[in-house]
Amino acid sequence: MPAPLLLVTSLDPEDEAAWREALATAMPGESVATPADPQAMRRAEIAIVANPPPGALAGLPKLAWIHSLWAGVDRLLLDATLPPVPVIRLVDPALARAMAEAVAAAVLHLHRDVPRYAAQQRRGEWRQHDVRAAQERSVTILGMGEMGRASARLLRAIGFPVRGWSRSGAGPDGIPVLSGTEGLARALGSADILVNLLPLTAETRGILDQAAFARLPYGAGIVNFGRGAHVVETDLIAALDSGAIGHAILDVFETEPLPTGHPFWSHPNVTLLPHIAAPTSRPSAAAIVAQAVRSYRETGLIPAGVERTRGY
Amino acid sequence: MPAPLLLVTSLDPEDEAAWREALATAMPGESVATPADPQAMRRAEIAIVANPPPGALAGLPKLAWIHSLWAGVDRLLLDATLPPVPVIRLVDPALARAMAEAVAAAVLHLHRDVPRYAAQQRRGEWRQHDVRAAQERSVTILGMGEMGRASARLLRAIGFPVRGWSRSGAGPDGIPVLSGTEGLARALGSADILVNLLPLTAETRGILDQAAFARLPYGAGIVNFGRGAHVVETDLIAALDSGAIGHAILDVFETEPLPTGHPFWSHPNVTLLPHIAAPTSRPSAAAIVAQAVRSYRETGLIPAGVERTRGY
Repeated sequence: MPAPLLLVTSLDPEDEAAWREALATAMPGESVATPADPQAMRRAEIAIVANPPPGALAGLPKLAWIHSLWAGVDRLLLDATLPPVPVIRLVDPALARAMAEAVAAAVLHLHRDVPRYAAQQRRGEWRQHDVRAAQERSVTILGMGEMGRASARLLRAIGFPVRGWSRSGAGPDGIPVLSGTEGLARALGSADILVNLLPLTAETRGILDQAAFARLPYGAGIVNFGRGAHVVETDLIAALDSGAIGHAILDVFETEPLPTGHPFWSHPNVTLLPHIAAPTSRPSAAAIVAQAVRSYRETGLIPAGVERTRGY
Repeated sequence: MPAPLLLVTSLDPEDEAAWREALATAMPGESVATPADPQAMRRAEIAIVANPPPGALAGLPKLAWIHSLWAGVDRLLLDATLPPVPVIRLVDPALARAMAEAVAAAVLHLHRDVPRYAAQQRRGEWRQHDVRAAQERSVTILGMGEMGRASARLLRAIGFPVRGWSRSGAGPDGIPVLSGTEGLARALGSADILVNLLPLTAETRGILDQAAFARLPYGAGIVNFGRGAHVVETDLIAALDSGAIGHAILDVFETEPLPTGHPFWSHPNVTLLPHIAAPTSRPSAAAIVAQAVRSYRETGLIPAGVERTRGY
């Protein structure tokens, strides 16, 4: 009988139990244990993690690899006690589709002036503004991973001119993708709407700061569906207050849940979402983890993982 | 020298002047007059109209046809003094694209629970709700003209299961389209989100009433980008108050501008737009009218018009 899979999270007990059940359902031949089981701690080769408490994975004698239930592993990699085994992040086509839908909703929200009309409705004001066509509104997506590519394809299908920016400069067919510092300046300069889907790494932390905002066309819209720490929050508030940025749709924050009284809550030019752009789907994620575990049991090969130095 | 084109509107003077200039620019060889010019009234064969005052087109001795600058001609056809000449309505691909973008924005707004998160933001409440995929959200579009077809194609590209309902039962490739009373009942019964793009005719006036709302799945969303008179407003308010309809996005109303104090202004489950879903683009509309006039001058043939008894 193979060693149990070790599920390590800091989720609330109900949430963790739901994950345990989803994983058990997807892998009827495996047993799923938690750190409360000392025998599992001694024997486990595979840890399946969702926000594991720092240090929780240290000192597991047999640990061979770690599968994250999240797509973003930035928080996991910050744990200095993380053993030097491969880390696999969740790459889920269903997640990429959900993100592309969220991006399309956010971009169309800004494109069609929904925040302005909502403010008019609150004032009881009937006033029409010029409507631009999607083809006249350029969108730049920072980050061309699975989610960035799916979003770029969907925005292009709607009719927006789309360009990307990524470390490697690679993207889907027909989408121009820039890279490097020079490329970032150009990508920002033409962005009527800027969408951030970058992974959080040492290079991308704080990338959306005063200097970046100053490169955007005056009054541009911003969508942050990456990580809160990509944005220098005080710089963003200053840019919103000055009108340099017209409106921001924010799903992620330095501290989550966003603290009571944070200026984003009540800023008239902020649309705030509680980190729901692309939530992991339990059945879908469990099926993907199950596939990786099955492949490991059959072949002994560990699935391709995150490049630690790159951060994703 | 051909008879002048007669521009007849009830727009404000600045707006009418802008139309006159757009038409003159699109047709340098033609002269564009208004009813203030008695000689033009005697000679005009072609009237170009935008909300003409009732009776304004009666008694023009040479009038051969009328081109509307709007896509909807319901108000024009209600004028009992309208002479029995062909009426051409604006069919503009740019207008269909603008409508499809507006429909996509509205459907994604409802699909991604934007009104609910906006209410939470106002309360300072951080709470996540389940996210459904587009493929799990059925959309029904009433009306399969140029705008309905463009909208159906775009919603399908985003991933929504789409069906249509129309008088003829015809639609674009791969979109199932129902017709008739029985078909309407089925189209409503499966609509998580209902989009109205029908022309306003004797048959469609008041089509969205208590009986129609009762056929929708409980909590369905509604988007009315057709005409205000398609909706029985008191029935809609009752359905919103009971929760039978979860949220309504309304761009058109029985009376426009929507009167101060109308319950739609402040209803928590209404998103109100000031008739901006698909505004006519002056240069685009002027170019289309110019093409029709040029063809008439060259061939003497009047472009295909509205079927008066059908109403569009």
